[in-house]
Amino acid sequence: MGYKSDLQIAQENKMQVINQIADEIGVPEQYVENYGKYKAKIDYRYYNEELKNKKDAKLVLVTAINPTPAGEGKTTTTIGLADALKQMGKKSLVVLREPSLGPVFGLKGGAAGGGYAQVVPMEDINLHFTGDIHAIGAANNLLAAMLDNHIHQGNKLNIDLKRVTWRRAVDMNDRQLRNIVDGMGNKGDGVTRQDGFDITVASEMMAVFCLASDITDLKERAARIVVAYNRDGEPVTAGDLNAQGAIAALLKDALKPNLVQTLEKTPAFIHGGPFANIAHGCNSVIATKMGIKLADYVITEAGFGADLGAEKFIDIKCRTAGIKPNAVVIVATVKALKYNGGAPKTELDDINLEALERGIPNLLKHVENITQVYHLPAVVAINKFPTDTHEEITLIKNQCQEVGVKVVLSDVWAKGGAGGQELAEEVLRLVEEESELDFVYELDWPIKDKIEAIAKKIYGADGVDFTPKANKEIEGLKKSGFDKLPICMAKNQYSLTDNPAKLGRPKGFRITVREITPSIGAGFLVALTGDIMKMPGLPKVPAAEKIDVDENGMISGLF
Amino acid sequence: MGYKSDLQIAQENKMQVINQIADEIGVPEQYVENYGKYKAKIDYRYYNEELKNKKDAKLVLVTAINPTPAGEGKTTTTIGLADALKQMGKKSLVVLREPSLGPVFGLKGGAAGGGYAQVVPMEDINLHFTGDIHAIGAANNLLAAMLDNHIHQGNKLNIDLKRVTWRRAVDMNDRQLRNIVDGMGNKGDGVTRQDGFDITVASEMMAVFCLASDITDLKERAARIVVAYNRDGEPVTAGDLNAQGAIAALLKDALKPNLVQTLEKTPAFIHGGPFANIAHGCNSVIATKMGIKLADYVITEAGFGADLGAEKFIDIKCRTAGIKPNAVVIVATVKALKYNGGAPKTELDDINLEALERGIPNLLKHVENITQVYHLPAVVAINKFPTDTHEEITLIKNQCQEVGVKVVLSDVWAKGGAGGQELAEEVLRLVEEESELDFVYELDWPIKDKIEAIAKKIYGADGVDFTPKANKEIEGLKKSGFDKLPICMAKNQYSLTDNPAKLGRPKGFRITVREITPSIGAGFLVALTGDIMKMPGLPKVPAAEKIDVDENGMISGLF
Repeated sequence: MGYKSDLQIAQENKMQVINQIADEIGVPEQYVENYGKYKAKIDYRYYNEELKNKKDAKLVLVTAINPTPAGEGKTTTTIGLADALKQMGKKSLVVLREPSLGPVFGLKGGAAGGGYAQVVPMEDINLHFTGDIHAIGAANNLLAAMLDNHIHQGNKLNIDLKRVTWRRAVDMNDRQLRNIVDGMGNKGDGVTRQDGFDITVASEMMAVFCLASDITDLKERAARIVVAYNRDGEPVTAGDLNAQGAIAALLKDALKPNLVQTLEKTPAFIHGGPFANIAHGCNSVIATKMGIKLADYVITEAGFGADLGAEKFIDIKCRTAGIKPNAVVIVATVKALKYNGGAPKTELDDINLEALERGIPNLLKHVENITQVYHLPAVVAINKFPTDTHEEITLIKNQCQEVGVKVVLSDVWAKGGAGGQELAEEVLRLVEEESELDFVYELDWPIKDKIEAIAKKIYGADGVDFTPKANKEIEGLKKSGFDKLPICMAKNQYSLTDNPAKLGRPKGFRITVREITPSIGAGFLVALTGDIMKMPGLPKVPAAEKIDVDENGMISGLF
Repeated sequence: MGYKSDLQIAQENKMQVINQIADEIGVPEQYVENYGKYKAKIDYRYYNEELKNKKDAKLVLVTAINPTPAGEGKTTTTIGLADALKQMGKKSLVVLREPSLGPVFGLKGGAAGGGYAQVVPMEDINLHFTGDIHAIGAANNLLAAMLDNHIHQGNKLNIDLKRVTWRRAVDMNDRQLRNIVDGMGNKGDGVTRQDGFDITVASEMMAVFCLASDITDLKERAARIVVAYNRDGEPVTAGDLNAQGAIAALLKDALKPNLVQTLEKTPAFIHGGPFANIAHGCNSVIATKMGIKLADYVITEAGFGADLGAEKFIDIKCRTAGIKPNAVVIVATVKALKYNGGAPKTELDDINLEALERGIPNLLKHVENITQVYHLPAVVAINKFPTDTHEEITLIKNQCQEVGVKVVLSDVWAKGGAGGQELAEEVLRLVEEESELDFVYELDWPIKDKIEAIAKKIYGADGVDFTPKANKEIEGLKKSGFDKLPICMAKNQYSLTDNPAKLGRPKGFRITVREITPSIGAGFLVALTGDIMKMPGLPKVPAAEKIDVDENGMISGLF
């Protein structure tokens, strides 16, 4: 008997009409905007007009060890935990990111949980959903068109063609667009210059969108976006181009959080979707803030491992939004820990206590970061696979016990909320603990000190080297008064170092920062380490080749 | 006292909840997918399951003289006529194209009718609407990414890099992207080649979308799209790349017609939006076919003048879909006729019978085309302006009388449906006339004969010259077996000739066809004349600079 695919499970599920889900969490009908029967946007005016002063839910962040090709099931655990809490009679709600079409058509197929812990309608969530990412792309590209049009029409702002920093965006894995020359052709066809596209989820516009607290804030952020420098070296902004109003107009509907449901009818907001390696990696501030007013327990996740997702979630998003997690779940799998300990990809199903022992320190580092750096209560959730052995689980449990953190097994993939009871119980205990969140750095520290704090405290590095380019950029940022912002590290997700091949818990390494670019609209500085790609490519056989739809609109080939 | 802007009028209007509109035309609730309270998609399964065998409505096509900078009000008249019929107690419905963001942020501001003859919610319709055009752009760009990925991964299909014909698309006026070189950078960054972007509404994907009768047909059309030629000169298709399933998956929701309403609560389908100068210029076949099953009178429009929009509506869309208009409305204004007669743009408010007399033949030519070439009943609607004089109107009336066509005044801009009663009465009379639609050409004619038939019969040209490039392409198309398709003329909209400066009714001219490209997925051959731009640019001061949104999501600056 074979397993059912995620898509099969999702399609066999009978969804609740979304208006009923909205009604159950108390959203008045006038704020609910249906997008079909099973998706709705909730008007942000609801927050301003009725929710602002309500009590906050307990917020639980789900993060993970460094990810591996084996898959950790962080989203699955996030959803399953919310379902488990619901089964225990708690008012729970899950808040997630929107999937990008790039990975859907590239390698991943789908990105809405898995097994019996999914958000639905799975196909819609993976394909356009309510159009937010396209709207963000359009806002990004309108700004680009206005910028190049300004240059073409006479360049009153004296923009330096060699220092146009704003790139175009498309929600697609398209390596062909990474480096282009545009404005070719004849006199009427723009101004020839080097340019390129990023995937929309890696764009500053996505970060602006996700960090904005409302439309007014969105407009102010948009106006601050630095798109280029003039020939005197001064920043030129979207505000200088009068683009912020049109940008906000394009985003006014997208900015409303999207309400869907899990397979077990737990309410889910899915809104905003920046990558976590090259962007800040968590869903919109608006969705999180709305979520914590509508439930008693809100479960959210941050992308990739805790070194990237959780760090940015706390040091950027929590700081910006004035929120704080009450507990943190760190997801790991036996397979992924063995992989982190050097076991080959093809042998992860075999018992291998040596590899596991070498891999566990990766988990322990993330645990320590949460409990000893951020001072937050934490639990480790082992996302269960049939191949896991008792010895392996015991080894993980014993080692985590030494750092004072409980390990629970999560079987939500196979059993839904029923498989997450133990995890839910530990979470319920943890969120009641007193905790005082410490950030890794303070905003008024010098740029280099902030980056060093992340590298040393979170990655475990000995220090940070800055390339001459990065040093020069830091000087420029100080001169422009942009040095008091948080840092968004751009680092590969596989390793705690800037070298994706170094797994486990490396020691005695340094991080090299090769470039620092300002995302003034988003409100952070991006520090690039290693070879970070802002536009992925498709694999040899893209997932797209297997995706299909029948004459009734029924999708197949998403997994 | 100043006039109210279109946006003001639209925002002051109290809309009906869209489900009530759907209910009034008899759409069962299970086929209605809300997009907010005032927009809905109607599932195409409704057509297949319940509508297919119902009686067809009378179909009325609204077209116009050659457009001028003064504006003719074709969409306004289309909407007003439907409202007028409704006021007379008739079951009417209007079917229109979706506006592209390009013109919205460029020159035009809005494109949803005007004055008291508008479709609403005006802002939404102009900004993303239900996301269809973005979905079409994504499908277009997925195919492009899969194509370049195939080349990058080894090029098994032996694609000739110099003969990649598929371009990328964005729904934006962005001249900077017309001509680019992509795939630059390093070894992993694709294959360096010349490339470019078209505005999405000019793409073949938009035409495929608009001409598809259902998902199965959409997939078959998508598979037939020619994206390149191999090194043996043979066409390479989207089907060769296994892209049709994913394309259809991306378009499965977009393919459902969008239901909105006019200011007077007349139901309106707005679906699909190809430009008419470079594409086929009319809304989707699916929306039109659904519309004619849900009302007794369906009013639709085709883009630009009758030489472009109406010709393609009839020779391409009607032929493909097996439908036929029962009457045709030709919209003109006194101003536009004076402009066509040589009056300068700044003096169109002044009475000028000489210019008018020189301009009227433009109208008469379009009238003759409808009544004598296509053999369809026609009426001329003069869209009223306060500056129009009695003498001018009389002159138009007398000249039209000579060709047997009635001229009626339309005041729907100022009065809504009440201003369209005379037009509605004449239309009700015309649709009862017997008529036998003749196409301008038959599909099995040689390519050159088909193009000559359009040029001679519709434009009034003496003949057609083909460049050596076009001649060579025609040979190639014949060899590939693509010669039995209809022709989609790409021609400037301002003149009956291929020179936009020749207004009125030019005689003694020839048309030059400089290129013929196959749109095999759409199912037509595009014959390019003159300097036709598939990617517009923004003007010196883009409309985008004035567009804004307040903290409650209220848009301003659309007009």
